Amino acid sequence: MDHQDAFRALDRQECLRLLAKVPVGRVVYTRHALPAVLPINFSLDADANVLLRTSPNSELVRAVDGFVVAFEADEYDAATRSGWSVIVTGPATVVTDPAEVERLSETAPASWMPLPESVIVRIEAELVTGRELRGTPGNG
Amino acid sequence: MDHQDAFRALDRQECLRLLAKVPVGRVVYTRHALPAVLPINFSLDADANVLLRTSPNSELVRAVDGFVVAFEADEYDAATRSGWSVIVTGPATVVTDPAEVERLSETAPASWMPLPESVIVRIEAELVTGRELRGTPGNG
Repeated sequence: MDHQDAFRALDRQECLRLLAKVPVGRVVYTRHALPAVLPINFSLDADANVLLRTSPNSELVRAVDGFVVAFEADEYDAATRSGWSVIVTGPATVVTDPAEVERLSETAPASWMPLPESVIVRIEAELVTGRELRGTPGNG
Repeated sequence: MDHQDAFRALDRQECLRLLAKVPVGRVVYTRHALPAVLPINFSLDADANVLLRTSPNSELVRAVDGFVVAFEADEYDAATRSGWSVIVTGPATVVTDPAEVERLSETAPASWMPLPESVIVRIEAELVTGRELRGTPGNG
């Protein structure tokens, strides 16, 4: 079995179905020219964009607003060495239009942290890729 | 409760103890000037550096060899809105010295994919940071 065969690429619909299953993903971005990553709970809007809620003064907002980021979610099972991962890549923006904030307020997740004030960050699902690793017997 | 209080910073020892609990983390790097991320199983060497095994011809090797990357692992519980995440940041290198490859061959993980040939990638634990999110009651 070639190692390429162990992976199966997932189509956009499969990716979005899997993304909707998990509450937490990871924002991948650049901070001071170094790779940075932050796990955070999320939801998807009707267009499959990723929605986050965070503090308006957070480092995350300063680092990602207006920039292309990746958002990754996955699940795996160590016993069967199987799992999947999905990555959404696109520009992140703080939603500032009041009508849009109102429209998204039901869809956007509640923060897992108590926040005195919060903003919604949207990551546009420009590129959605995913792959599934089928279980293989242990080889070491 | 201020939202800052919801997080507790973890010291290096706590970070390494938590890292050792999970088999899979995520390499965070830059590809074609865009943020990229790849989940992969890993182990830690005696100096707490992250060890991965992958194909010598992989895109990952081309993208990370000689560059500073981040490596993230986490666990969370949606029911209690609690969890932790640990991030190791440092230069990644393919281990090429035969004596070093031999020395690390027991410690480096077996790939979850069958690989016709493999190399060990080491991410130096130059910076190890982590935080714990204590559970908070749901607020919406």
